[in-house]
Amino acid sequence: MSYSSQLLQEAVEALGKLPGVGKKSALRMALFLINGERSELKNSFVAPIHRLLEKINFCTECNNLSDGPICGICQQASRKHSSICVVESVRDVMAIEDTGQFNGIYHVLGGVISPLDGISAEDLKIDQLIDRILKLDIQEVIMALSPTIEGDTTIYYISKKLKQHQVKISQLARGISFGGELEYADELTLGRSIQSRTQYKLNEL
Amino acid sequence: MSYSSQLLQEAVEALGKLPGVGKKSALRMALFLINGERSELKNSFVAPIHRLLEKINFCTECNNLSDGPICGICQQASRKHSSICVVESVRDVMAIEDTGQFNGIYHVLGGVISPLDGISAEDLKIDQLIDRILKLDIQEVIMALSPTIEGDTTIYYISKKLKQHQVKISQLARGISFGGELEYADELTLGRSIQSRTQYKLNEL
Repeated sequence: MSYSSQLLQEAVEALGKLPGVGKKSALRMALFLINGERSELKNSFVAPIHRLLEKINFCTECNNLSDGPICGICQQASRKHSSICVVESVRDVMAIEDTGQFNGIYHVLGGVISPLDGISAEDLKIDQLIDRILKLDIQEVIMALSPTIEGDTTIYYISKKLKQHQVKISQLARGISFGGELEYADELTLGRSIQSRTQYKLNEL
Repeated sequence: MSYSSQLLQEAVEALGKLPGVGKKSALRMALFLINGERSELKNSFVAPIHRLLEKINFCTECNNLSDGPICGICQQASRKHSSICVVESVRDVMAIEDTGQFNGIYHVLGGVISPLDGISAEDLKIDQLIDRILKLDIQEVIMALSPTIEGDTTIYYISKKLKQHQVKISQLARGISFGGELEYADELTLGRSIQSRTQYKLNEL
């Protein structure tokens, strides 16, 4: 690409670092910014990204993203601090929060045990989780990890560590997705959903 | 989407302003930035965009993007300053430069005449173009505008303005695309390419 401007070229290269953004998209973005209200964009586009890089923290309790040392969820007194949901990443916290079905606290592991990717238990926040569970008098640990071999390995590893302590461990229900078609469900999922079938309760409407 | 962090939410909203970036992509981008080398990203990501918004200019001669008051192309003495290529946008300059087939100078109109979109001749840099053509002793004006009704209208309008002056006006050849399949070419294009057929010259290799 022939850029007549060094400034443009550098900005296109910067935008091209973003995930899913190629050279053409980066150029389109740079031209969009140039043609916009530039002094306003410095405040509304550049400044928030700069602040993000400068100030965002990870909660010292649960490793969730946080503006201060402790995140909003851990600070909220109205939440059930005896129920902890173990997730892989910050995005999972958001996804579960969006369901509105959980009112406890979280613990972000930062991944799952995956020897093939060189991720062992020491690379994750597992020791910190065990400490928290014992310190906070947790009643239930909900394992909300990916339904994969790696996720299952991680659940097994944590459960073993918690074996001698009196704490209930549960995992997300596995089965067919809501709205999915049975014929397209994979064998393993369909098989498991038959094994772990639940009793139908008639709700009188 | 439930954000536990105000900083994250603001950054996601900022990134979501970019063309072609939805909320999910913006979140992915923000998390990518958070997980990167943050102090380095301030220099390599935020700074170039800030500089772009702060410093980039339009060339006072041709309206191309430029770091200084006159762009690199207009400054280059080795280029043929008697041949001017009229384009709609900065991107078209890049596209033509990438072909390596043109060694003259450019003039960026900033669009084409389009009454439906409320763009009239006065909104474009047409008067400036006429002034330049007369001032610079231009021999050939190459109309590299979109092959649309609006593009053709603009070519017609400019040609009429230049009628009394001795200047050669040409436009991009129209015909079937290289590598395209004949059966998929639209009727108008195929029809025109038959009308304006060119004589085949045997190149002895």
